[in-house]
Amino acid sequence: MLSKAQNKYIRSLTQQKYRKEHKAFVVEGDKMVREWLETGQEVQLIAATEKWASVHESLINKLPTPTVYIIKEHELQAISGLQTANQVLLVAAMPDELPIVWRKQWYIALQDIQDPGNMGTIMRTADWFGIRDVICSQDCVDAYNPKVVQAAMGSHLRIQIHTADIGEVIKQSQLPAIAAVMNGANIYNIQPMEAGIIMIGNEGKGMTDKLISHATYKVTIPRKGGAESLNAGVATGILCSILTNK
Amino acid sequence: MLSKAQNKYIRSLTQQKYRKEHKAFVVEGDKMVREWLETGQEVQLIAATEKWASVHESLINKLPTPTVYIIKEHELQAISGLQTANQVLLVAAMPDELPIVWRKQWYIALQDIQDPGNMGTIMRTADWFGIRDVICSQDCVDAYNPKVVQAAMGSHLRIQIHTADIGEVIKQSQLPAIAAVMNGANIYNIQPMEAGIIMIGNEGKGMTDKLISHATYKVTIPRKGGAESLNAGVATGILCSILTNK
Repeated sequence: MLSKAQNKYIRSLTQQKYRKEHKAFVVEGDKMVREWLETGQEVQLIAATEKWASVHESLINKLPTPTVYIIKEHELQAISGLQTANQVLLVAAMPDELPIVWRKQWYIALQDIQDPGNMGTIMRTADWFGIRDVICSQDCVDAYNPKVVQAAMGSHLRIQIHTADIGEVIKQSQLPAIAAVMNGANIYNIQPMEAGIIMIGNEGKGMTDKLISHATYKVTIPRKGGAESLNAGVATGILCSILTNK
Repeated sequence: MLSKAQNKYIRSLTQQKYRKEHKAFVVEGDKMVREWLETGQEVQLIAATEKWASVHESLINKLPTPTVYIIKEHELQAISGLQTANQVLLVAAMPDELPIVWRKQWYIALQDIQDPGNMGTIMRTADWFGIRDVICSQDCVDAYNPKVVQAAMGSHLRIQIHTADIGEVIKQSQLPAIAAVMNGANIYNIQPMEAGIIMIGNEGKGMTDKLISHATYKVTIPRKGGAESLNAGVATGILCSILTNK
């Protein structure tokens, strides 16, 4: 059983303020928790149903005893951020933000991404395409928001998140920066590149003109139909697909 | 003001059963409602705040009077499916499902897509790439679910939704069917095609083996990193991008 204070602590981590203060965030659900434990990440606490714990004994036996708490399903539901709690959750230590190391590889830079589902999907997409660094402007949704963690499907284990001024970062990088905008050049005609920064802006407003002025290339995925725009996660996926496979 | 019965009716439309019974669904928020009205679609009812109605008089003046109801913000919130209601909602007539007309063009076929956000994003993506028909298996989430409508961002106005057995449809079509699977051929090496059916399966389980056996090509977006899979909406976007631009 969890103490009252522990329950309160876990619930507090739905708020960015407390995640920052405690340098911790919540990872939920059978699949993601297993992946977390298998990679040997630092874990503050696990709360699992008896059933889950008995099936996954080998995974939790490695952990120091006071880390693992067996709780009833209704207790799990009370601390869960999911509509229907899924057997287990853990509190993970938030990794320190490392300085960006510039190599001849691909990076993603996000300005003012607000939807947690988009942010998580973008991290998952980066992870699929082997992009290791996602750079977020200060005004992006917090990458450790529970809905971001859910949508990222474990990519937090492999992606480095950096918070920075995107314009500054582009200058430092000495890499080409490719901005997805509404009236740019046809992305399919872009010259092949080995490395660069893929820039994506806010879901409604796109990128600021100031940031666009830092871009080396302004590109557009040509529209053939009636939709006003593409979802930010989908646009990122298409850019990754085209740019990293030329 | 809306009557008690009208309030109840609008709220009932969050459930598929009542949407089917009444052949109606809800469209919410300033941007989407404006787009709906501008295209002259059949509207059963509009509920708007006084402020919204006064700014958009020209749009609603065309409608027969008993269609438009001015309501207070708290009344709107009470019937809204959004966390924060956005000025206006309307009840739209659900279009009759038309038979699929096979032409030399691209189609999207979905098996067992469960997440409403994904379904809406796929419709929006189809709409961007000029794909007019999205064919859903019986077990897909309802395309008129409020969260689907929200994510589709108005694409319901342009996309035709068909419900059908995907295997049967592929046989009838005489078009190549391209299935996104985990261990298929490299999608970037696929031969150029003018038309076809892009097949996407369930978020967790992918497509059934039976359905895969109907595919003309089994393709994979090559993975370079650690993520186990791509989001279904992102995968659809990448397939549309590659296949419709070869």
